[in-house]
Amino acid sequence: MQSIKSYINDNKDRFLSELIDLLKMPSISADSAYKADVLKTADAIKISLEKAGCDHVEICETEGYPIVYGEKIIDKNLPTILVYGHYDVQPPDPLDLWNSPPFDPIIQKTELHPEGAIFARGACDDKGQMYMHVKAMEYMTANNELPCNVKFMIEGEEEVGSVNLAKFVAKNREKLANDVILISDTGMIAPDVPSITTGLRGLSYVEVEVTGPNRDLHSGLYGGAVANPINVLTKMIASLHDENNHITIPGFYDKVEDLSDAERAEMAKAPFSLDAYKKSLDIDAVYGEAGYSTNERNSIRPTLDVNGIWGGYTGEGAKTVIASKAYAKISMRLVPNQEWEEITELFKTHFESIAPKGVTVKVTPHHGGQGYVTPIDSLGYKAASKAYEETFGKTPIPQRSGGSIPIVSLF
Amino acid sequence: MQSIKSYINDNKDRFLSELIDLLKMPSISADSAYKADVLKTADAIKISLEKAGCDHVEICETEGYPIVYGEKIIDKNLPTILVYGHYDVQPPDPLDLWNSPPFDPIIQKTELHPEGAIFARGACDDKGQMYMHVKAMEYMTANNELPCNVKFMIEGEEEVGSVNLAKFVAKNREKLANDVILISDTGMIAPDVPSITTGLRGLSYVEVEVTGPNRDLHSGLYGGAVANPINVLTKMIASLHDENNHITIPGFYDKVEDLSDAERAEMAKAPFSLDAYKKSLDIDAVYGEAGYSTNERNSIRPTLDVNGIWGGYTGEGAKTVIASKAYAKISMRLVPNQEWEEITELFKTHFESIAPKGVTVKVTPHHGGQGYVTPIDSLGYKAASKAYEETFGKTPIPQRSGGSIPIVSLF
Repeated sequence: MQSIKSYINDNKDRFLSELIDLLKMPSISADSAYKADVLKTADAIKISLEKAGCDHVEICETEGYPIVYGEKIIDKNLPTILVYGHYDVQPPDPLDLWNSPPFDPIIQKTELHPEGAIFARGACDDKGQMYMHVKAMEYMTANNELPCNVKFMIEGEEEVGSVNLAKFVAKNREKLANDVILISDTGMIAPDVPSITTGLRGLSYVEVEVTGPNRDLHSGLYGGAVANPINVLTKMIASLHDENNHITIPGFYDKVEDLSDAERAEMAKAPFSLDAYKKSLDIDAVYGEAGYSTNERNSIRPTLDVNGIWGGYTGEGAKTVIASKAYAKISMRLVPNQEWEEITELFKTHFESIAPKGVTVKVTPHHGGQGYVTPIDSLGYKAASKAYEETFGKTPIPQRSGGSIPIVSLF
Repeated sequence: MQSIKSYINDNKDRFLSELIDLLKMPSISADSAYKADVLKTADAIKISLEKAGCDHVEICETEGYPIVYGEKIIDKNLPTILVYGHYDVQPPDPLDLWNSPPFDPIIQKTELHPEGAIFARGACDDKGQMYMHVKAMEYMTANNELPCNVKFMIEGEEEVGSVNLAKFVAKNREKLANDVILISDTGMIAPDVPSITTGLRGLSYVEVEVTGPNRDLHSGLYGGAVANPINVLTKMIASLHDENNHITIPGFYDKVEDLSDAERAEMAKAPFSLDAYKKSLDIDAVYGEAGYSTNERNSIRPTLDVNGIWGGYTGEGAKTVIASKAYAKISMRLVPNQEWEEITELFKTHFESIAPKGVTVKVTPHHGGQGYVTPIDSLGYKAASKAYEETFGKTPIPQRSGGSIPIVSLF
């Protein structure tokens, strides 16, 4: 029997080259232009699960992109782990902020990664982490070390709200039955500060469209006399936060869980340097809801951010136009107890109500998901904590993350 | 000697086909991708001035696009008219709001144009009007009817601020000397309500850039904890107008000319139907500065409009990103006595001062121009008024337009 370390050393080049091939595939689920690439990536995942020793590997069709499933059942009396991951990635725009092409992976040493790290779209969300589990499986089956049953469920629509995964899960309760779900799709506090994510925020994502005049107008002839959809949109968005950066949507905070002072004091013990945080982002100040620390603002508090805005002339030079339409994509991060569908409805009602005369407003919900918090006295948490201790020599810190994995609450 | 009407009838097909050829040229001065097309258009203007009987036609190079000059001096004791026009056009974006391709001219009958009109980018700004003067010249020289000296100065940078025309005019005072300047680059009140534009607003056009974190961030991990440049930009833009739609930039209104009640009463006599105006734009209400009518808002009052805004993810679907940067193009229409360079400086100082901590702001002036009002008792105004009376059978109404032709004030 080969030790895990020597197995990694013997196979390192192959592992890297397989992962790099996977990262080269532009599996952008949000953009239908990449459909063929997303489907090709699902095929590649199927092959890698088979090579890792899974049985019954199949590409499960959905109304959207397929889910790749595989399993290894060694003993029905042993616990079963379900490994969840996703093979789709976010769009890489804006391309000019990449130091190297997003689908042309390179290995570079940086201050944060003195031993080198792979830079590519999807390298850490989520192809890299997912691949780590596939390779762990390969080692355990090759060396007959598997201590439990394992199921893999790798989807292709995480970045667009996992709509079809929910249906798939509902239809396949028996097949997916498990004791522990393992998800590696978040971050650690620092390379030398291991942490386990115990909570995630929920999400409501909407697109808004403001329409003014029925066509683009010359600003010299109409400027100041008709509602300019871009000016109106900026006013409407600006009004969604008050001077303390509280969100002004009526009812938005009604169900938000208030943490006790003791819980907040416990959270405040996590190592965090505000100076290092600001330095790493090149900002001279943080910004957020009054009365909360940076770590609270991005984990236990709900937020509202514009993720994209556009309208009018955005090319080179100047054009004196009043646009007929202006658009924005807006997402709200939610905390446990906030229902994402209810929040989406509250947003829609409020946003439509604040539109001034002279424009019409359309709110289109994109997708959403519930927040979730897991207990830290479970079998799964204890096993994970022990594994971290063996690897890092340190007990990992339980941590609530600000991000969202829409499917977690459903699981 | 042939009458003007029979000359038009005999040559109508040729006139139309020449104009359509000119409209097919995408002479977009704001976008350097069209450089060759803009230069080709200058060549075409030179040929048409020569054909119209001008002497000394030349393409005058500048640091930007050239100015086409031509003249016909018949008697130094007669008055000289300088005809100004421009051969460049605005960018046609967004393309999906055009019913036919912008550089593929079509003639269509509409409610407003029961006899048919040409639809193409530049048809009425300014190739159509400019061409009308060239053809009038052709008729007068062919029939020996020219009653005065004529000079043509047709530029290619009107849509980007006429920066090089100003230098050209300063260097060629003798060559351009004239008694009357004739510009057809505005509109009429209605096809059956002839009007002569006696005033134009000035312009200050700036681009703003708001930078937050040094890279795009995941909104789940950083949302609510750092300043989001798009949210900040919307707040900053929204604050530029107060609840009465007055502009909040300190000093902005200091030099604005206040019209007397009598002057405003005179203006209010121009025929205007608010219902027809709203209907033509498909809007249920107009919008603008409190205390002023629609016609006042777009002529005697200064305004501030966002002409373009962009930042973050603007593609299909959803991406939960916090953008590193957000941008807007903003123009201010100015009235007589407001100095555009001073207003640009006031804007810059104010906009930078309202940036919250956590972002940096850059304001880049694009171009500008002064407003101008001409007297209605001049030789030129009287001659124009008489020509309208003969053609329309009605005395034209003097009218202040909301648009800007940056060079007018310099002239």
